[in-house]
Amino acid sequence: VTIPVRRQPSTFTSGRDVEAQAGRLDQLDTPVVTLDLDAIERNVDRMQDYCDLHRLVLRAHVKTHKLPQIASMQLARGAVGVACQKLGEAEAMADGGIESILVTFPLVGEAKWTRAARLARRVSLSVVGDSVTVARGLASHLPPTSSVGFLVECDTGLERCGVQSPADALELAREVAASPALRFDGLLTHPAPGRAQAWFEAARSVFAGAVLQTPVISVGGTPGALNVHERVPLATELRVGTYVFGDRACLLRGDVPVDDCAMRVRATVVSRPTSSRVILDAGSKTLTSDLANGASDGLFGFVVEYPELLIRELSEEHGRGELPRPSSAPAVGEAVSIIPNHACGVTNLHDHAYLHRLGKIVERAPIVARGAVR
Amino acid sequence: VTIPVRRQPSTFTSGRDVEAQAGRLDQLDTPVVTLDLDAIERNVDRMQDYCDLHRLVLRAHVKTHKLPQIASMQLARGAVGVACQKLGEAEAMADGGIESILVTFPLVGEAKWTRAARLARRVSLSVVGDSVTVARGLASHLPPTSSVGFLVECDTGLERCGVQSPADALELAREVAASPALRFDGLLTHPAPGRAQAWFEAARSVFAGAVLQTPVISVGGTPGALNVHERVPLATELRVGTYVFGDRACLLRGDVPVDDCAMRVRATVVSRPTSSRVILDAGSKTLTSDLANGASDGLFGFVVEYPELLIRELSEEHGRGELPRPSSAPAVGEAVSIIPNHACGVTNLHDHAYLHRLGKIVERAPIVARGAVR
Repeated sequence: VTIPVRRQPSTFTSGRDVEAQAGRLDQLDTPVVTLDLDAIERNVDRMQDYCDLHRLVLRAHVKTHKLPQIASMQLARGAVGVACQKLGEAEAMADGGIESILVTFPLVGEAKWTRAARLARRVSLSVVGDSVTVARGLASHLPPTSSVGFLVECDTGLERCGVQSPADALELAREVAASPALRFDGLLTHPAPGRAQAWFEAARSVFAGAVLQTPVISVGGTPGALNVHERVPLATELRVGTYVFGDRACLLRGDVPVDDCAMRVRATVVSRPTSSRVILDAGSKTLTSDLANGASDGLFGFVVEYPELLIRELSEEHGRGELPRPSSAPAVGEAVSIIPNHACGVTNLHDHAYLHRLGKIVERAPIVARGAVR
Repeated sequence: VTIPVRRQPSTFTSGRDVEAQAGRLDQLDTPVVTLDLDAIERNVDRMQDYCDLHRLVLRAHVKTHKLPQIASMQLARGAVGVACQKLGEAEAMADGGIESILVTFPLVGEAKWTRAARLARRVSLSVVGDSVTVARGLASHLPPTSSVGFLVECDTGLERCGVQSPADALELAREVAASPALRFDGLLTHPAPGRAQAWFEAARSVFAGAVLQTPVISVGGTPGALNVHERVPLATELRVGTYVFGDRACLLRGDVPVDDCAMRVRATVVSRPTSSRVILDAGSKTLTSDLANGASDGLFGFVVEYPELLIRELSEEHGRGELPRPSSAPAVGEAVSIIPNHACGVTNLHDHAYLHRLGKIVERAPIVARGAVR
């Protein structure tokens, strides 16, 4: 699916860091995370156009960027709301002005339920769950006048969370529907394997027999997102995160061209011990140890300026690159741009990201939801 | 080598968080990083006693904990100073009152050299390097009255940074020794493979021929640290980090018993989709994707209360555990303690750690050097 890009650039005029606005990426010390706003807009529009074309609601998963200003841009360009993978992310998004939030992680325990109830007073909140513990616990902390959405998580193949059968889904859905404080919204799965369609068809029958509606069928995941309409036609909502930046996993799947990989880690060559070995100041504490989803090459990033430079090994602060043949370039002191294996993990490591257009810094953005570990 | 523990407990009376001091670990919401001060003291003393016995100087690597209060404890119990893997860590340690700092990462670029020169005015600073770029760059930012220590990094087998031969080491050492602002201190390698001894013996001959002293021969790494005196008798200094906490890699090597694995990630069971599947609220953004150094089992942590529960897969926020046989325990809501694969990576993910003795919280410690990415 190729859809032309037609929307206008967002205006990022936060003015939070006037000094940074005057600068350019190549003036930054390394390692540093940079985000290309033009590429982000292209990525956001491509996915939004796909969803619009196939009448899917797009819910932007903020786990990838953890930045309210990017979430706001996604909403302005058509997303219905955001998904958050933890309550702390949801709180940070609420603080940043986001009003429709789905927490796609089961909330367990008094502390979480208390915070969720507090959050439900200021945003339109939905949650997921696959057990009565989650449903009853949250409901018991909500006033009966609440209307917190609840999606029953279904295990359609990933073997992570989720009820195991449509009958189990119905049982939990009934419990939710009977709770004054909760609103049963439908079913959710992650990702959206082909068998999800059969699962949801079976569920539709079971729920129809019980005269219970499932207005939302929510599926997730950037890989394969652009053919969800074919694989899971019953889906009504698509939750995607990584698409906003792209990363080496997207690149290897052919989903995003290099120019649209918006996240780069700028790194500097700090040592050239041999004519084919290049040591960069970006290791696992900068790039994560995450492998590219689906790749088996064992590499830790794509070096844009030197595609032949293979990052074969990471220490905590060192990246060890190998050149296929002896070369004096890149030399000690030269900076390169790395497309990381997994964008979401990188965001989670850094306190700041530099938003830019064509290398000109627009904002030094604090990654406000980063430290939200709970 | 077994050495009796004989020192007194440190006094941790920071009073920074009176509320936390009243609490216990089992009152904390999860996921959360906990550090057992009694275990830390045992680990610190064991390594210090080893170094004392073999007349090795111990330099504590702070990359593992990133906490000045732990560094101070290491110094109080015999360490000569700290090693830092980046300048930001060194600055955080200086802010925390640490006075002897070795930065074991090559500093490259105007920004780093300017900051290093500033740091050299307030602490006793040493650096490493394997190129004239590093030596000349730093020297050019120092007043000639400076006396910044410089160790030439030698590649004795890891194939990361380091000069490739004793002759190259001598060439760089001469450059350093001739610089008014730098003080040539000796040679450094990481880790300390058996062949490091032959390398340093050859270097000793080469340097003797040039009438240049190498007072320091510094080796690094917790794995195998306790027999460095046999493998690399020429070593004068041992740099170790992970030993302070222990982690699953240490556990698997048999270096540290479970009770002395001081770092635990407390996590909660959030889903029990099947009788053998246990989903925890600790994924790669909490535990890292780091595998246990040297292990090939592909697991992501050791669950202390349920050793049979194997954490086989991490998503960003989910840990997927498998039980060998159906069981209702642990149930949704139950908390467990995970010994992570790699302690240093976990520290790098979290803003706070809870220091405790026997489960009673002593301090909620901000991991002050965590955000120091440069």
